Amino acid sequence: MESLANVAPTGDFAKPRRNVRMTPKYLTLLSTLRSSVTKLYANKRIRDIRHVNDKGSDQNSFRRAMSSFMLMAQCFALCPVQGITSLNAHDVRFTWCSWRVGYCIVMILGMTAACGFTIAFYIKGFFTFETSATVVLYTLGLSCCFCFMSLARRWPRLEELWQRTEHEQIQYGYPRNLYLRIRIMSAVTLAIALGEHFLAKYTVICTVALCSDKKRDLLQLYWLMNYRFVFEFVQFSLPLAFLCEIVNFFASFYWNFIDLFVIVLSMALSSRFRLLNSLLKFSVRKVQPETFWREARENYNSLSVLTKFLDSCISSIVLLSFATNMFYICQQLYNTLRKSVGTVKLVYFFVSISCLLFRTVAVSLCAASIQEESRATKDILYALPAESYTIEVHRFLVQISTDNVALTGLRFFTVNRNLLLTVSVKI
Amino acid sequence: MESLANVAPTGDFAKPRRNVRMTPKYLTLLSTLRSSVTKLYANKRIRDIRHVNDKGSDQNSFRRAMSSFMLMAQCFALCPVQGITSLNAHDVRFTWCSWRVGYCIVMILGMTAACGFTIAFYIKGFFTFETSATVVLYTLGLSCCFCFMSLARRWPRLEELWQRTEHEQIQYGYPRNLYLRIRIMSAVTLAIALGEHFLAKYTVICTVALCSDKKRDLLQLYWLMNYRFVFEFVQFSLPLAFLCEIVNFFASFYWNFIDLFVIVLSMALSSRFRLLNSLLKFSVRKVQPETFWREARENYNSLSVLTKFLDSCISSIVLLSFATNMFYICQQLYNTLRKSVGTVKLVYFFVSISCLLFRTVAVSLCAASIQEESRATKDILYALPAESYTIEVHRFLVQISTDNVALTGLRFFTVNRNLLLTVSVKI
Amino acid sequence: MESLANVAPTGDFAKPRRNVRMTPKYLTLLSTLRSSVTKLYANKRIRDIRHVNDKGSDQNSFRRAMSSFMLMAQCFALCPVQGITSLNAHDVRFTWCSWRVGYCIVMILGMTAACGFTIAFYIKGFFTFETSATVVLYTLGLSCCFCFMSLARRWPRLEELWQRTEHEQIQYGYPRNLYLRIRIMSAVTLAIALGEHFLAKYTVICTVALCSDKKRDLLQLYWLMNYRFVFEFVQFSLPLAFLCEIVNFFASFYWNFIDLFVIVLSMALSSRFRLLNSLLKFSVRKVQPETFWREARENYNSLSVLTKFLDSCISSIVLLSFATNMFYICQQLYNTLRKSVGTVKLVYFFVSISCLLFRTVAVSLCAASIQEESRATKDILYALPAESYTIEVHRFLVQISTDNVALTGLRFFTVNRNLLLTVSVKI
Amino acid sequence: MESLANVAPTGDFAKPRRNVRMTPKYLTLLSTLRSSVTKLYANKRIRDIRHVNDKGSDQNSFRRAMSSFMLMAQCFALCPVQGITSLNAHDVRFTWCSWRVGYCIVMILGMTAACGFTIAFYIKGFFTFETSATVVLYTLGLSCCFCFMSLARRWPRLEELWQRTEHEQIQYGYPRNLYLRIRIMSAVTLAIALGEHFLAKYTVICTVALCSDKKRDLLQLYWLMNYRFVFEFVQFSLPLAFLCEIVNFFASFYWNFIDLFVIVLSMALSSRFRLLNSLLKFSVRKVQPETFWREARENYNSLSVLTKFLDSCISSIVLLSFATNMFYICQQLYNTLRKSVGTVKLVYFFVSISCLLFRTVAVSLCAASIQEESRATKDILYALPAESYTIEVHRFLVQISTDNVALTGLRFFTVNRNLLLTVSVKI
Repeated sequence: MESLANVAPTGDFAKPRRNVRMTPKYLTLLSTLRSSVTKLYANKRIRDIRHVNDKGSDQNSFRRAMSSFMLMAQCFALCPVQGITSLNAHDVRFTWCSWRVGYCIVMILGMTAACGFTIAFYIKGFFTFETSATVVLYTLGLSCCFCFMSLARRWPRLEELWQRTEHEQIQYGYPRNLYLRIRIMSAVTLAIALGEHFLAKYTVICTVALCSDKKRDLLQLYWLMNYRFVFEFVQFSLPLAFLCEIVNFFASFYWNFIDLFVIVLSMALSSRFRLLNSLLKFSVRKVQPETFWREARENYNSLSVLTKFLDSCISSIVLLSFATNMFYICQQLYNTLRKSVGTVKLVYFFVSISCLLFRTVAVSLCAASIQEESRATKDILYALPAESYTIEVHRFLVQISTDNVALTGLRFFTVNRNLLLTVSVKI
Repeated sequence: MESLANVAPTGDFAKPRRNVRMTPKYLTLLSTLRSSVTKLYANKRIRDIRHVNDKGSDQNSFRRAMSSFMLMAQCFALCPVQGITSLNAHDVRFTWCSWRVGYCIVMILGMTAACGFTIAFYIKGFFTFETSATVVLYTLGLSCCFCFMSLARRWPRLEELWQRTEHEQIQYGYPRNLYLRIRIMSAVTLAIALGEHFLAKYTVICTVALCSDKKRDLLQLYWLMNYRFVFEFVQFSLPLAFLCEIVNFFASFYWNFIDLFVIVLSMALSSRFRLLNSLLKFSVRKVQPETFWREARENYNSLSVLTKFLDSCISSIVLLSFATNMFYICQQLYNTLRKSVGTVKLVYFFVSISCLLFRTVAVSLCAASIQEESRATKDILYALPAESYTIEVHRFLVQISTDNVALTGLRFFTVNRNLLLTVSVKI
Repeated sequence: MESLANVAPTGDFAKPRRNVRMTPKYLTLLSTLRSSVTKLYANKRIRDIRHVNDKGSDQNSFRRAMSSFMLMAQCFALCPVQGITSLNAHDVRFTWCSWRVGYCIVMILGMTAACGFTIAFYIKGFFTFETSATVVLYTLGLSCCFCFMSLARRWPRLEELWQRTEHEQIQYGYPRNLYLRIRIMSAVTLAIALGEHFLAKYTVICTVALCSDKKRDLLQLYWLMNYRFVFEFVQFSLPLAFLCEIVNFFASFYWNFIDLFVIVLSMALSSRFRLLNSLLKFSVRKVQPETFWREARENYNSLSVLTKFLDSCISSIVLLSFATNMFYICQQLYNTLRKSVGTVKLVYFFVSISCLLFRTVAVSLCAASIQEESRATKDILYALPAESYTIEVHRFLVQISTDNVALTGLRFFTVNRNLLLTVSVKI
Repeated sequence: MESLANVAPTGDFAKPRRNVRMTPKYLTLLSTLRSSVTKLYANKRIRDIRHVNDKGSDQNSFRRAMSSFMLMAQCFALCPVQGITSLNAHDVRFTWCSWRVGYCIVMILGMTAACGFTIAFYIKGFFTFETSATVVLYTLGLSCCFCFMSLARRWPRLEELWQRTEHEQIQYGYPRNLYLRIRIMSAVTLAIALGEHFLAKYTVICTVALCSDKKRDLLQLYWLMNYRFVFEFVQFSLPLAFLCEIVNFFASFYWNFIDLFVIVLSMALSSRFRLLNSLLKFSVRKVQPETFWREARENYNSLSVLTKFLDSCISSIVLLSFATNMFYICQQLYNTLRKSVGTVKLVYFFVSISCLLFRTVAVSLCAASIQEESRATKDILYALPAESYTIEVHRFLVQISTDNVALTGLRFFTVNRNLLLTVSVKI
């Protein structure tokens, strides 16, 4: 590879190093990356390992902060890549022939079946709002499986790109407490989701209990009513009921997980921008040479490239997340306003819509923080003294002003703070 | 590379060449073009012919990729220009005195008659949603004829400009498989349209069959009902019924064809931007001289000028396409939601609205891809190393950031990915 | 004044001339203008008169093209400035003590009375859609009087600024046929308005004729019904009825005139931008020195300043025009859709709404053309060869990209082509 | 000019002065500010005191213009900072242990109780529009208390930053009549609010009087009806009724005060931009050296930093103000249109909605004027002669074009003139 070839013969490191860094940064998005990445990594990994030994703080690196999170995703048959617990992003791989992919495919089949049953039920004439919500739930589950399967194929490259960016910007360190924040966010979101899920079940069982007088048949009646879209077509059997319950649980999990996934990735990315901004704010106190600003701009551009690559990977998930949340908010509001319901159902509705709103707002704000942090760099550049305002700073400013660094919903809309208001006004 | 070959023999050729290339690029849009174009072409055509002989890939040139497509349009009395199968854009001409124009005028008369009958029928008090759709269909047909007639007068200049742009950027080659992609897109879209058209006819005949008991009169009854807006005023006769059928078929074809037309032109144009981007991505691996970036910028500007000229030609068609699709989507949704209809009609409605949505989305995404591709160049410039960031690159970046390279609906709206969401929210 | 002082002693004219031109350009908007304007004009008028003698084309100057138009406005008690027929903008003055102002104040009193009667009638409980339209009509009339009274005080400075801009850009000549186009536009719009007004009267008289059997009392009955909001409070008398008729005629005229006024001013301004663009397009064929681009930029900036000053003068009229048109379109649509009416009324409604739509679209497109033309300059700059791309061109490009040269509705909205779509979607 | 005076004695003072000024400007937003601020202030205060003695115009300084206004706020238990009447911003402090904070906490408790009662009343089934308005009123009161408590903690730093900015730009003087304008605006707004409040009370008492026949019990009946949400749960007692009345009065005051607060701060800030613009307009008459433009740009940036800091402090209050006004306008419109009410209520409704609209428009326009004034600087730069167009001016222009200097509603929306139209269209 030319970059290494450049480095080898010459002793003066400064300018070649630029080339080493610059060229691959851009090439990342090109297909030529794959061939050159191994040699490059040999070089990088030395630095990597040294830092791994040096600092305890690198548990906040993206790789380590995400590994347990992704493991949880894999438990629920999402994102079937291998080597997810490895320290090195290079070990993360995707192959079609693996148990994880098999597990995912099984779940896809389950979701497809559930989707089919609900649509058949829907066509057969049982068109109520409950059915509509069920159809959306399993369609979401199925889409989610497909999105994460497609994500899995690009995930190794994303991890690689992210780790490389982190190593190039090792002087900024790692985001503080990223590991902890991801943990807490996951725990809180999933706890709320679990609570809401069981409250939903409890509400249904309460409703069922009104119809049934014998305690023994309660569970069966619950299954018959709750999965009526299956047992309308198929004879009731206990294993089938369990299968239904599992698929339902997974679908509910997915609904919550895609929000959480977008939140976690946004937190990780926006904290990288925040790191860059804090270093710039700190450095700006004394006049910096042009090379400093060149490096800062290149680092910013690396993050911009990373954002765009991340967006190309997860923009379908972002769209899915927003669309589903919008649908459920509208449906819940409609349900609540339309009919006067019993106390248990009312409490459930309020809890449910609060969870929904909390999650929607959290996703929006977290995803919007990427754009906010990336724009905040502008203020630092405006305040630079005239001596520091070189061509590099001007180029930096032009990039920040004209580049749109943000997550998008399949490029149909950009996720920023304005979006939340626009959407709420539409409703 | 031809540019170097040109430069080689004469030492002082560099600057004149610039002028030759630069000036006409801009002047294309001026009326002064016409006088200077012959001399220029003598020069260009030599290159043209050489390349025609050299490469087999130029079947992907705009001229060759479009010729059979435009021939089909001419079969349906649209865009009556001459020399549409010629290899050289210079042979494409428009004259008022030609059989093609005559054919078009006949069709315009037919459409006008149909329009008149429907409006008279509408005023007479038969205001139903079916009538409203019919009025819109024939109004669309008539507008379509006029738009393409007006387009035909500008088409030769568009072809010329496009071919010149292709020749100037001959080092990028031609878009890969453009020819094939246009063929496939046309085949798919028209096959779907044909299927939908016959399903519509079948649905009407089914409805008619319910009213009639004798098999013999079925076709006549169908004509009487389907073209009631004519036979309310005129005595039924078989030739007239055939005429009605033909005009109806043409109008339905136009409705599908304008979408297809926008799709095909968008594909051809956005693939030119994609070519430019791939070459830039490839070239960016090593530091390029300023002249390279100057040429890249000029090529980009050529494409921008081409886009604006194309837009000035077809923006009325784009507006027509979006407006009609919006109207029919609203009407279909309203029809489906309002009344419970029989199975055959229901199936037809679902098929019809799916086709409609598919086409609307396809038009939007294809037309939006022009803007997307033209903006993608920005990312390459951001990633350039500091050594390459000359005044030319800065100017390039300023142009991309401030220029709006996109198709528009008669300049009332710009077609981008955001539009699709905006429109769907409005509905 | 320093500018003249600068010119006098030194023989080398080039640089001082810059100062002369630059400084006053900006100062125009400052209050310091007034004191220095007389001396400056002594200088300018020489050039002015020379050109008046030289060319016949200066009947297309703003002053001459507008004089008869403004005279018509003054016949209807609008914009009471003096010297409106003078060749020199310097003669246009506004004083409170003049017959014209008195005439306007009389009309304001009439409008106020009409407004008062309609509101009293409205409060008294006669709240129908016809009343609502009447209230809006007289409120519009009154606002219109006030807006034009306030405009009259700024009109002399606007004329001066415009004439100065024209003289500075005398090398571009005057817009071709501006005089003629204003005449034709006025004639067409007012003819349509007159036709629509008499059709409205005829419709009312037809309705009245149904109630009355005696021919003699028809006119009185018409007055009693049409001006019921007056005669509900005051005893009927013939002079009063005539007064009502006159005030009604004036209000109707104002409703049409504000649209025409915006159209005419937009045509005059956008044609100046078009002149600049054509000269630039023509000049761009050969490489121009930096001073050429400096002058072009300064001329562009003069037009931008002129646009902003014009906007500050007429933005309230623009808002009034858009708001009224929106109200009447909504009201007419509501009326037509709500109730089934007789043939005469139906024809009137269709004619009326067509006139309304025609005028609204004409106002929007004309006013939007200012922005369109001002942006079109950008394309010329993009196409400049690298040799011509100096700092002046860059500055020119930056100004066009970042400056918003357009009319606004009291700065609440910018009038561009997008607006028309936005507004129609809202309805 | 003081800057020259400072430079005069020492020859090499120019550059250090830059550093002194530049660095802290930016650092203001950093936590490192606190340590360095004392030394800096020792330096500044000398200047400060000199100017205090020199000019009488500094009663228009932010500190003095706001002190009585903030005192009024503190009377109503808002913004509990100490030293609010001091001349020096350095004396303004926030401590948790103070009587003022205690007073605020008492009021928070009162608001919480009122909120709790209304919500309990609401849940108990008394869901009418009157209740809904009451819930919103007390929720607003409570939020308002919290917002101002949180503002109080940042207020000292805001005052400091503002005073420093004023001292740095002492050559521009202070905004003319700021003191007076704040007084008048406060007086007018609060007088209107008071009038509207008593009219509301009168309306309620009139309604009550219809139900009651004995004059003596009128007041008690009024309390029972107006504070039914309390006395539904608690036994009636006179002290409690007085407490209710006080809390109600405070909540109504807050509703008006947050609008007034945003208006006053916007006036103060936009007048600073206006000062800068007038100086620039004045200076632009003769060619200025680059250092002049550098200083102008830095001053502009100081104001931009100040705006952003102010926005970070009050954006929640802006959001609260807009949201509440929107809610009440919608509710009043709905109430007025829905039911036909008696004359007293009708008059009250018209007065009430007029006040509401006046306040909403005033808030919008005042807050929008910050953006307008900050953008107006652009026009001055466009008109600069070529000699003055240095890199500093370019940088200045780039900043104005790309920086968004405006108040926001918690960054969800930017307050500009367009917003008012957008919002009114939504309604």
